[in-house]
Amino acid sequence: MSTPHTDVEEVEAANTAFYEALEQGDFEALSALWLDPADLGVDEEYHDPADTGVISCVHPGWPVLTGRGEVLRSYALIMANTDYIQFFLTDVHVSVTGDTALVTCTENILSGGPPTDGEELGPLVGQLVVATNVFHRTRDGWKLWSHHGSPVLAESDEDDSDTSPA
Amino acid sequence: MSTPHTDVEEVEAANTAFYEALEQGDFEALSALWLDPADLGVDEEYHDPADTGVISCVHPGWPVLTGRGEVLRSYALIMANTDYIQFFLTDVHVSVTGDTALVTCTENILSGGPPTDGEELGPLVGQLVVATNVFHRTRDGWKLWSHHGSPVLAESDEDDSDTSPA
Repeated sequence: MSTPHTDVEEVEAANTAFYEALEQGDFEALSALWLDPADLGVDEEYHDPADTGVISCVHPGWPVLTGRGEVLRSYALIMANTDYIQFFLTDVHVSVTGDTALVTCTENILSGGPPTDGEELGPLVGQLVVATNVFHRTRDGWKLWSHHGSPVLAESDEDDSDTSPA
Repeated sequence: MSTPHTDVEEVEAANTAFYEALEQGDFEALSALWLDPADLGVDEEYHDPADTGVISCVHPGWPVLTGRGEVLRSYALIMANTDYIQFFLTDVHVSVTGDTALVTCTENILSGGPPTDGEELGPLVGQLVVATNVFHRTRDGWKLWSHHGSPVLAESDEDDSDTSPA
């Protein structure tokens, strides 16, 4: 595989690295991929009225998590409860504007929890999730500023009136 | 109400304007709030390898919509099927980094469809949605680059092993 050169290639590589860190349960790699306000010369502990570089994350069906503490704790919890997870990404779309990149993709997920009752593996579950991932350019490369994943619910062709509004 | 001055105040005003346009069913106002690659000197029709300023949108439970055509058509459809909608926003958080702003908020939605069978109003439905809205700074103010809304599902305190992974 060649070294990425263009912005879009760099962003795609950062996006792939994010899902690989999750697949490998590599918490250190995952932590390093998320933006740290300190990378931008901002100390998150002090009051920055614009909350520059403060990350946020929405797992499918979850409320919003804000800041490195909440976000990284959620991944530690998820990793502790996931024995096996694989992401097949489709429909990856990248839009780069200035120092920010917007990635949308479909996550075709296969995952399994810890074994229960003496089984060798927990039950495997398939999930269809769409994600919007926002990356910011830093001196250390593109870092994840926001992840929002949500379940794709079945289409209802027969009745358009129950489409959700926003 | 005073005129917004700081970046955060300007972004909050743009975010509020987005939901007000939806409440009022004002398609023209809504269209003007979404980023247009032309505002950035990019012609969406020509091949821009970075897809600069190309918008995306995820309605709760929907797949990803990309580009002004798909996104604005979805809002036209939603507006045509919504007689009444009100958003009570809570937990609004803004993070501004350079020329991009990330807004997360909880949308407490009350909505109603068109009347059926001679009723005066369609049934009112309450919904709890969390949203990540990404705005980009242009000469015309902050414009919406991405909206991702997703349903908040009930917490299950008794069993952490079914937490969703990403």
